[in-house]
Amino acid sequence: MLNELQHQFEDALLKYSHSLPEKTLYRPIEYILSLGGKRVRPVLVLLSGNAFGANRNHLINAALAIELFHNFSLVHDDIMDKAPIRRGKPTVHEKWDSNAAILSGDSMLIEAYKQLTLTGDKHLKEILDLFNTTSLEVCEGQQLDMEFESRTRVSASEYIEMITLKTAVLLGCSLQMGALLGNASETDCLHIYNFGKLCGIAFQIQDDYLDAFGNPEDFGKQVGGDILSNKKTYLIIKALELADAETRSELESIYFQNTIADGKAKVGRVLELFRQLEIDEITELESIRYFQLAKDELDNTSLNEENKKGFLGFLELLRDRRR
Amino acid sequence: MLNELQHQFEDALLKYSHSLPEKTLYRPIEYILSLGGKRVRPVLVLLSGNAFGANRNHLINAALAIELFHNFSLVHDDIMDKAPIRRGKPTVHEKWDSNAAILSGDSMLIEAYKQLTLTGDKHLKEILDLFNTTSLEVCEGQQLDMEFESRTRVSASEYIEMITLKTAVLLGCSLQMGALLGNASETDCLHIYNFGKLCGIAFQIQDDYLDAFGNPEDFGKQVGGDILSNKKTYLIIKALELADAETRSELESIYFQNTIADGKAKVGRVLELFRQLEIDEITELESIRYFQLAKDELDNTSLNEENKKGFLGFLELLRDRRR
Repeated sequence: MLNELQHQFEDALLKYSHSLPEKTLYRPIEYILSLGGKRVRPVLVLLSGNAFGANRNHLINAALAIELFHNFSLVHDDIMDKAPIRRGKPTVHEKWDSNAAILSGDSMLIEAYKQLTLTGDKHLKEILDLFNTTSLEVCEGQQLDMEFESRTRVSASEYIEMITLKTAVLLGCSLQMGALLGNASETDCLHIYNFGKLCGIAFQIQDDYLDAFGNPEDFGKQVGGDILSNKKTYLIIKALELADAETRSELESIYFQNTIADGKAKVGRVLELFRQLEIDEITELESIRYFQLAKDELDNTSLNEENKKGFLGFLELLRDRRR
Repeated sequence: MLNELQHQFEDALLKYSHSLPEKTLYRPIEYILSLGGKRVRPVLVLLSGNAFGANRNHLINAALAIELFHNFSLVHDDIMDKAPIRRGKPTVHEKWDSNAAILSGDSMLIEAYKQLTLTGDKHLKEILDLFNTTSLEVCEGQQLDMEFESRTRVSASEYIEMITLKTAVLLGCSLQMGALLGNASETDCLHIYNFGKLCGIAFQIQDDYLDAFGNPEDFGKQVGGDILSNKKTYLIIKALELADAETRSELESIYFQNTIADGKAKVGRVLELFRQLEIDEITELESIRYFQLAKDELDNTSLNEENKKGFLGFLELLRDRRR
């Protein structure tokens, strides 16, 4: 079912891309949208909208808005993070330049709002309120993420707050938007939003876990990449919280120094310390805990078992990936 | 009257600024909004809204949206143009850094939409359509402006197109937004939009004129600044269009080379050639022609003479400034 929704969305997205004006400004938009991805957020809009019985055309517009917003944030975040590669291809600021990336990013955000105005008059105000709140939260999350990178100490709860804002709320927003367009009750909107948000938090924690403890064959990327790049993840934050003074001092000195010659030795020792502190188990349990909380939210909606299936399928897809 | 509207708006803006969240993300927004300026665009929203009898609170929200959008575009344009100073103070990317300027600019654009959603449900869709169209045009204008700087030849009509998009349409949009909120007819909306747009074009052409031919004592900035910085203005574009091959070649070589040691001599010779080609007169007449076209649009509205006064006062303020 999720695959079917993804195909539906890809068709709409291609049609949208072809409808963009000829002008230079829109070429980076076309480019970033063509790079693919799993289209998780727009699929969630469609999934939820279908479950609550929303108008199909309005749903497609909402899904396009969410995907445009997501790609806007990727283009601007990539400038800020100086990222050269996105989905195996040069980022927009690499392929063009920073100016083109700033300006076409801005235009993509406006294009997102253009799509929102096509979702029908009935729910326009609510849709905009939800979108405005969420998109400001995403900006706040990116701000926190950048601040954390230059801070010496970040608590686990601050980290959860950051990933919630930066990525999880947009999953909640996507689901709630579909629900709103399907005239769902306030209670259902709240629970389906929370379901998405909690799945997002669980996913991010699991992402940190897999980067360090995933099976490299299943996971598809280099294990320990976060450790090699000194990234502040749930693992290191939790480890520093739980370690005694001596271990903490060793962890800090090997994790955050930039002049490690032997990357393999660094990853090996960090993983050893993580295991000593049982960070692998703690993190896995924390991810499972959030998935369970998400499930509880889904159970609290008025959706029947048949309609819940798609949401559960989504949760399982996230939870069981790449192991 | 315009002064009174400016004071009203400043009060509302200050209140808005104080209501922003404590988080770091919002400090650059507070800063750029505090740098002042004549608040031309929000004053136009209020002027037009009052003339057409709009709800006062809705007008203030629309005016805030327009001013937030304008400042968002200044913050991002300043990054792209590498401008160190804005209104005598460091630009946002200088005072903080580019990342903060990108991210707080994004947030300001979203904040603008937040204000738009507070302008009442009745006209929300029309207001958003107008705003979306205009803001994309402003992005297109900035794109053209950047492209022109690296192009060898730009025609006068291309230049007019660029200043129309980059700055004039936002004046038209500001006036039309007030009119929409006052339930103005479609015809009135169109004419008042055109009035603002044409005033904007006239103003920009005059701005280019004054930079070269203004009285330095009245004008308040260094005469010839555009010439010194090789800026593509209406004057040089028109001059290159009208000059014979020999003069064109001399103009091109002295205007666009980056290694002029004696700036004063450069400005002197360029002004001499401009006068020879009667660029001063041509430009002044072109500006006056656009102001006249604007006046015609105002006359075509259904506004009575009393209500037209504010708009005429605005036109005269633009036209007669700094001489």
